Amino acid sequence: MTTTETYEATTLRLPADVLASPTDHRVLTGDRPTGRLHVGHYFGSLQNRVRLQNQGVDVFVLVADYQVITDRDITAGIDEVVTDVVLDYLATGLDPDRSTVFAHSAVPALNQLMLPFLSLVSTGELSRNPTVKEEIQAGGRETVSGLMLTYPVHQAADILFCHADLVPVGDDQLPHLELTRDIARRFNDRYAPIFTAPEALLSHAPRLKGLDGRGKMGKSRGNSIPLSATADETTALIRSAVTDSQRRITYDPPNRPEVSNLVLLAALCRGEAPEAVAESIGDGGASALKRLTTEAVNDFFAPMRRRRREFETDRGIVTRILERGNARANEIADATLAEVRIAMGTRY
Amino acid sequence: MTTTETYEATTLRLPADVLASPTDHRVLTGDRPTGRLHVGHYFGSLQNRVRLQNQGVDVFVLVADYQVITDRDITAGIDEVVTDVVLDYLATGLDPDRSTVFAHSAVPALNQLMLPFLSLVSTGELSRNPTVKEEIQAGGRETVSGLMLTYPVHQAADILFCHADLVPVGDDQLPHLELTRDIARRFNDRYAPIFTAPEALLSHAPRLKGLDGRGKMGKSRGNSIPLSATADETTALIRSAVTDSQRRITYDPPNRPEVSNLVLLAALCRGEAPEAVAESIGDGGASALKRLTTEAVNDFFAPMRRRRREFETDRGIVTRILERGNARANEIADATLAEVRIAMGTRY
Repeated sequence: MTTTETYEATTLRLPADVLASPTDHRVLTGDRPTGRLHVGHYFGSLQNRVRLQNQGVDVFVLVADYQVITDRDITAGIDEVVTDVVLDYLATGLDPDRSTVFAHSAVPALNQLMLPFLSLVSTGELSRNPTVKEEIQAGGRETVSGLMLTYPVHQAADILFCHADLVPVGDDQLPHLELTRDIARRFNDRYAPIFTAPEALLSHAPRLKGLDGRGKMGKSRGNSIPLSATADETTALIRSAVTDSQRRITYDPPNRPEVSNLVLLAALCRGEAPEAVAESIGDGGASALKRLTTEAVNDFFAPMRRRRREFETDRGIVTRILERGNARANEIADATLAEVRIAMGTRY
Repeated sequence: MTTTETYEATTLRLPADVLASPTDHRVLTGDRPTGRLHVGHYFGSLQNRVRLQNQGVDVFVLVADYQVITDRDITAGIDEVVTDVVLDYLATGLDPDRSTVFAHSAVPALNQLMLPFLSLVSTGELSRNPTVKEEIQAGGRETVSGLMLTYPVHQAADILFCHADLVPVGDDQLPHLELTRDIARRFNDRYAPIFTAPEALLSHAPRLKGLDGRGKMGKSRGNSIPLSATADETTALIRSAVTDSQRRITYDPPNRPEVSNLVLLAALCRGEAPEAVAESIGDGGASALKRLTTEAVNDFFAPMRRRRREFETDRGIVTRILERGNARANEIADATLAEVRIAMGTRY
């Protein structure tokens, strides 16, 4: 595998018509603000958002603040987390002059779409949702909240309100997108052809695992490297990563997941094939691997971290960006809701 | 039972503090716009709304248009039905200068409250709801829509957004009101004491049955007398009512439900005890009963029907009333949502 191929593997494969006329397309993507964004988010999605933006696609980035309480009781400290997440967006190159950053809680007309959309799905469809089923099992709970059960419908409202035609997703989110497509089709059939059934933009980015070797890198698991970590914090985090005792470093995810994860992280940062990175370390063992990975991460993210620190000094920047993004989202949501009300005849 | 007692039996028993200072209280009530309102609605609730209004209570009347699609697929013809329902309100004496008539679909900030409220209830609580369970059974369906499952939460948003402290309900709706009270308390405990847990205003109105002797009078069953029916239409409807062949008319609901229902309707219209009405007919049989009931209904509703015809000639009156009511509801809903966003910290 050549360097270029590995690099390409982390990007989205854009359909030909999108490549031909990127400005005709709109992407909806976003994050639950449950903690600072980390290098896993960067290679998994943030990098691609910026690429889409830079290609001319109209990118909508949703701060899904209500979704924070799908699986936790309260929203304590959410304003600080949202500030961090928006600063992370800016650090990675998201440009508020070209992309729209907005929050669920600030767009009532979007949220109102939940009501007609809930009428278009059955409780059976909701409770068969694989993610919801997984959550019930993972939480060892007898029941989940009404917000968790209905969140795929809320997600449909996020996508459909702004007529996004492209949604970057992982394989695991395809059932959600299919429900959004069903809701769009059912509404269009019953009332009027208002909504676009969106297409998936499947990401082929290899998923980074947590530094503790237990499952995926998580915002709130302490096993991730935040984008906003300092070089020293990054060094300490990688030093604490789980590895194994073999001197020879190889890229062998099935048999050596922890070591391969560090190799992959270094490879992504260096734009090289992971096999080549492993070979360059040879018999250096875990300490050489960690040294190389630390350097790769710190080098790669240094410009973003510098940019973030500059933005941090501009008090009020996050508020201004959200005010602007929310205003644009509200304008579109109000227009869509007006169309929906005409189509449903609920216009008096 | 004296005439006065019977008349009183149809009214709400207002708690002492409400009687002492009615202007300190707000009532939330309303209807699903699924058809013209009928005499059963009048004696069951419309009459009491007007009384509450006239006593100085701040009455909010919700045209629950999204709730129309809890149990049907589409909203076809809903604008005409809403027009009819608002004209019925005006005919019964609801005064838009004192009461607020508004529609679900026009108040996005109210609908947005669904989202934080859904996080406060479990799917178990939702699916144990007796009305939802009944609907599943009644419809012979395997599943209901997501909107049906979550409508008690939407109802909580209706009541809580405007801080209504009183909700007129029948016994069968007490579980819904209890869920609203739970949601208010849970929100207040978790975030900030914003919401008033409302009290039930239990109606003691005897429920009129359908003219076909099958269950309750229904908007869409053809077994009701619409408020807006003409005298001739009323005559024809009562002539077709199911009775029995006994000459002697008695008021005996358990054993003679159909005859007793007509006696009750006449009694409500005449402000007399049903026993006295039955006695006045004596051995006249079903035809005398129907004659007397027809006259009582037509006499009682004549002024309302006259008023309705006057309002019908004023094109645009319904739009003006809803515009005004929606504006007031939006002002209050926006203020409540702003408080909720501050309490949850989702204010950026």
